[in-house]
This record gives sequence, C-alpha cells and structure tokens, in this order.
Amino acid sequence: METRTEISSLGEFGLIKRINSGIKTTLPDTIRGIGDDAAVIDTGEEFGLLSTDMLLEGVHFDLTFFPLKHLGYKAISVNVSDIAAMNGIPRQVTVNLALSNRFSLEAIDELYAGMKAACVDFNVDLVGGDTSSSRSGLLISVSVFGKVKKDKITYRNTAKANDLLCVTGDLGGAYLGLQLLEREKQVFLANPDMQPELEGKDYVIQRQLRPEARMDVIYELAEAGVLPTSMIDVSDGLASDLLHLCAQSGVGAVVFEERIPIDEQTYLAASELNIGPITAAMNGGEDYELLFTVSQASYDLIKNNPKISFIGYMTGDKEEIVLHTKGDGRVPITAQGWS
Amino acid sequence: METRTEISSLGEFGLIKRINSGIKTTLPDTIRGIGDDAAVIDTGEEFGLLSTDMLLEGVHFDLTFFPLKHLGYKAISVNVSDIAAMNGIPRQVTVNLALSNRFSLEAIDELYAGMKAACVDFNVDLVGGDTSSSRSGLLISVSVFGKVKKDKITYRNTAKANDLLCVTGDLGGAYLGLQLLEREKQVFLANPDMQPELEGKDYVIQRQLRPEARMDVIYELAEAGVLPTSMIDVSDGLASDLLHLCAQSGVGAVVFEERIPIDEQTYLAASELNIGPITAAMNGGEDYELLFTVSQASYDLIKNNPKISFIGYMTGDKEEIVLHTKGDGRVPITAQGWS
Repeated sequence: METRTEISSLGEFGLIKRINSGIKTTLPDTIRGIGDDAAVIDTGEEFGLLSTDMLLEGVHFDLTFFPLKHLGYKAISVNVSDIAAMNGIPRQVTVNLALSNRFSLEAIDELYAGMKAACVDFNVDLVGGDTSSSRSGLLISVSVFGKVKKDKITYRNTAKANDLLCVTGDLGGAYLGLQLLEREKQVFLANPDMQPELEGKDYVIQRQLRPEARMDVIYELAEAGVLPTSMIDVSDGLASDLLHLCAQSGVGAVVFEERIPIDEQTYLAASELNIGPITAAMNGGEDYELLFTVSQASYDLIKNNPKISFIGYMTGDKEEIVLHTKGDGRVPITAQGWS
Repeated sequence: METRTEISSLGEFGLIKRINSGIKTTLPDTIRGIGDDAAVIDTGEEFGLLSTDMLLEGVHFDLTFFPLKHLGYKAISVNVSDIAAMNGIPRQVTVNLALSNRFSLEAIDELYAGMKAACVDFNVDLVGGDTSSSRSGLLISVSVFGKVKKDKITYRNTAKANDLLCVTGDLGGAYLGLQLLEREKQVFLANPDMQPELEGKDYVIQRQLRPEARMDVIYELAEAGVLPTSMIDVSDGLASDLLHLCAQSGVGAVVFEERIPIDEQTYLAASELNIGPITAAMNGGEDYELLFTVSQASYDLIKNNPKISFIGYMTGDKEEIVLHTKGDGRVPITAQGWS
C-alpha cells in the first residue's frame, strides 16, 4: 500500500514551502529564483524580471458580482504589481485562458477589453498565450516580463535596521469591498427583488474589483532620486507581507497603528460590517499597494508625496515585529494578524 | 436584451483568431508578439523569448493513464519545444499549479519530480510560480523564457521558394500512443480484470506520455553551421504546422509521402487501430518534432544527420501545398489532413 499524505496536513503555505524547498537554480543568468515578487534574469545590460499569477473562478473570483472587464484588468494589474515590487518596468505579458462554452463571445470580448485597458494603462504589450476549453469555470493565467537597471533593483531581503517603513495608498479597502459584495450577493440570493446597497461604497468596491498596480509611485520614486532599500507588494495583507520582508532581511520592525493609511470609506465599511479597520489593513490582502523601506536620508525627498505613508521603522532585532498601538501598547504582528 | 453569440459558432481556431486580431503591440522592444512559437523581446545584446502553454485535466490529459511524473516532464518539454522552434536556448521556467485535495503530497512530489527531470534534461531553472486550490481537476500553466543571438533567430514567416523542407525524428507516434492508451482504458473500464496489452508498444506510448523537445537538434544544427530559414514545432500535426509555415511565409510546399519519417511501432499501431499511418503523421499532433526549412546550400552539411529527414521543398506558388503520394499523385494538404 502506497503512503498517502493529505495536502491539508500541510496547508497551502506549507505545501508551497515544501515544493519550493526542493527547487534549486543552477544557471549563472538566474540571479534570483523563487522567493521574491519576480524572478531575476541577467539579460546582459539589464535584469529581466519574470513573474506569473493565476486567477481561478470559484477560488479567486465570483462572477456573480465580478464584471469580466474588471477581471481582465485585475489579471494584468496584479502581475504588473509584482514587477513594480522589484522596482522594475513591466513590458510584455502572456495570457493563458481556459473557458467553458457557457461564456459567450461578448463575454470574452469584455474580458479582453479589460486586459487591453490594463495593457494601455501600464504600457505593456500582450505578446502571447494559449486559449483552451475548460470543463468547469474560467481560468486566467498571466505571465509578465519586465526589466530593471541592474543597480536599481529592489529585493525583499535587503531592508536594514533604522530604515523607514513606507506604504503606498491605503490598506484594507479591497478586503472590505469583497465582504460588501459577498453580503449583497447573499441578500440577493435570499430575495432577488432586493437591490444592492452599495451607494457611497464605490471606492472600496473598486479596490476589490479593479486594483491598480502602483507603477505611478515607482516612477515618482525614481524622479525623486529615491531607491528603496527593499520592497514587496501588499497582496496578502500588511502583516503577512511585512513578515516576509523582515524574515528575508533578518530585521525587525515597529509599525505605528495611527500611521496605517486607511480610507474614510474603509472605516465606514468596517464599521458597517463590524470588522476592525486595522484588522482589515493587516490581514485583508489584495490591496496591491507597495510596502518598502528607505534610508533615513531619503525622508526629505519623499515626505511630501501624498501617496506615501511612513508607517514605522526597521530594527536590528528580528524577533521584534510589533504594532505600536494608539494606546501606546506593543503587540506582536503575526501572520494571522496582530493578537 | 443583450446579444449572445456562442463560442461554438466560431470554433476554437476561430476564437483564437478573433482574439488575436484585436491585439496590437506598441513597444519598441517587442520584436514579435502573437503568431510565432514564442514572443521575441529585445533585451539588448540578445533577443529574449517568451512562451507559455497550459495543460488541463480532462482536456489535455487523462490521469487514469497519464503518470504524474510524465505529465510534469511533458509540461516543461512542450514549452521548451516552443523555444527550440525559435532556434533559442531555454533558460527559465515558471509553473502555475492548481489542484484539488484529491491529490496527495506524494502525487505532487511525483509531478515535481517529472518537472525537475525535464529541467535537468533541458538545462533550465524553475524560478517561480503560483500554487492554488482548484475546484475540479489538475491544471498546469507553464511559461518559459529563453534567449537567442539576434542573427540566429528563426521565424515562421521566412521560408523561401526552393528551400528544402526538413523534419526531425518521426511523426504520428504520439497520436497513436494516445489511441492505444484510450483503447486500453475502455477495455479496463469494461472489465477491470483485463491487463493492458501494451507490449512492444513502448515507443509510441512514450511519444505520447513523455515527448522530448528537440534541443539536441538545435545544438547539432549550430555545430554543423546550419541556420534554418524558418522553423515551427510540430504540435498540431505536420499538415497544420506546414500550413502555418507556408501561409506566414507566403510560399507553397511539396511533401513526398515516402519521405515522411514514421517509426516501425507507429506503423504497427496504425495497422492495429486501422488508422492510416500518414493520416496520423499529418493530423495526429503532439509529436513535438521540429519542422524547418534550409537553403539548398545547407544540404551537404546535415544530410548525414540521422535525426533529420528531408521531406520536400518549398515553392513560389502559395496556393500549392501538396502531398506527392507514393503512387505519383498530388493531393492538396489541408488543415484537416490530406483529402
């Protein structure tokens, strides 16, 4: 009898860790393999960046409330975000699509309209891909190729003690937008005559449905002459992504609760849904903002950029990754959030 | 009422054509987008090559007879084949995987063992990817990055009249291997006590389960100092892929039936299954051999390479794409085969 070990015994993160631990790179032009936002390839004059992400119906999105045009946009945007997190410029994308015949040509046109809009916004070319039939739902697998000057690349493992910790935009909105959409879906399923109550919630809904990779900030940092000392995109929530940055850099961090940028609509949605806004920012995920560190000398160069919040600093004690609360308490930040 | 047009009204090729027709590239470093085996990116000193392919359970493979280790190998190999078809060297791959919890850790290990074996064989690094849960079957989406010297790239649209038409290895085996496996599956389903009758069929079975990208021939052509004038990999069958080469190059072709390389086991399987061996070679697909053209001056340099068959020549009449039969007849080659 063969041994059978269930995946559930490891969990998703455990499974990924197990898979990745068995993979080594051997080529001299593979500068960085698994473990950062994108793989880094030495293409001669510059570094090439390669990353890929997949969106599956029923796992990553629910078409009962996700417009196909937004979905197409998001599929490109979340991949571009991985290139941004390396301080790179996205250039080309490929799209693999699997779909069943429940989708009409008009639906596919909508999906591609969204992808093309994202290609225009982020100045990338759609250069290839594969279209296949699917037995079940819709599936989109995107790969992105980007580039970065060799001395401008930013990794996850290069934050230093006393660096300032920065985040772009605001956090928690995408998660609360999803909770609102799911609530309205349940209301609708219970009573199809009900109209969705989403007035005044457009911003958090948009955060979920149509996230924007922060290439704007990448260009503004370059203009300001600031090179982050480390960077990661906030896809899993501030807590989880900060822990990655700290673990890989071997540093600790102090985050000031009052400095975490949260939009007014996010506060309102949090209150309505009875979810803590800081919990949403810490653990919600899908905000696709950039979390990065800069040297103290960089502070004056970007302190007036309204897109950037200084939320804390890095420390030399890698055991100390804490949230400094409004009440002057210090609570450890964990992958499940802050306890 | 919104218009709804069924995908089936176009068919898969029609759908892909419709999608692709709406996509234009705009960046100066995008040398070639959709339409060849891989996209071509100007990375400075060299060209970068980017390609992607997806394998879906129930569409591209049947796990009742497809060992996971072979499947992992094939997922990498078919992507490498796209780089080979550009006369390139594959360097890095990314793997997106979606799987349900019906797969055990041991099953996933088998899949990765196959992918790693292919990475070793083709000298590529696995540098990234995404693992996700799936509601239904197993799904593997691979992207590959490769490189090629700018003056060594081979496209599909550069065959010239009077060039010689060559193919590597032999054709039709992968298709007949699949037919045998499907026959044995039906026999087994009807009577689980039956043992599969696959003795003496190992070669055609292997052609289906574990295709080898022909990087060996790419290296041998370079050693011989031969640069093909055009190239494509044979994934859809000789007929379909030759038609691509001819259409994109604006040339015709004459193929000699007696020159089409077919293995002894392929003949036997064809006979047993009552399928014409030439039909299998023309329309079977999945052989992942290379179909390429060379100038007549190159003939002497590779005529003794046993891996290369000279099967015909290109003509200036793009309307004339014909099979010269053993009986001295001439029949048009069509996408559905030869009528």
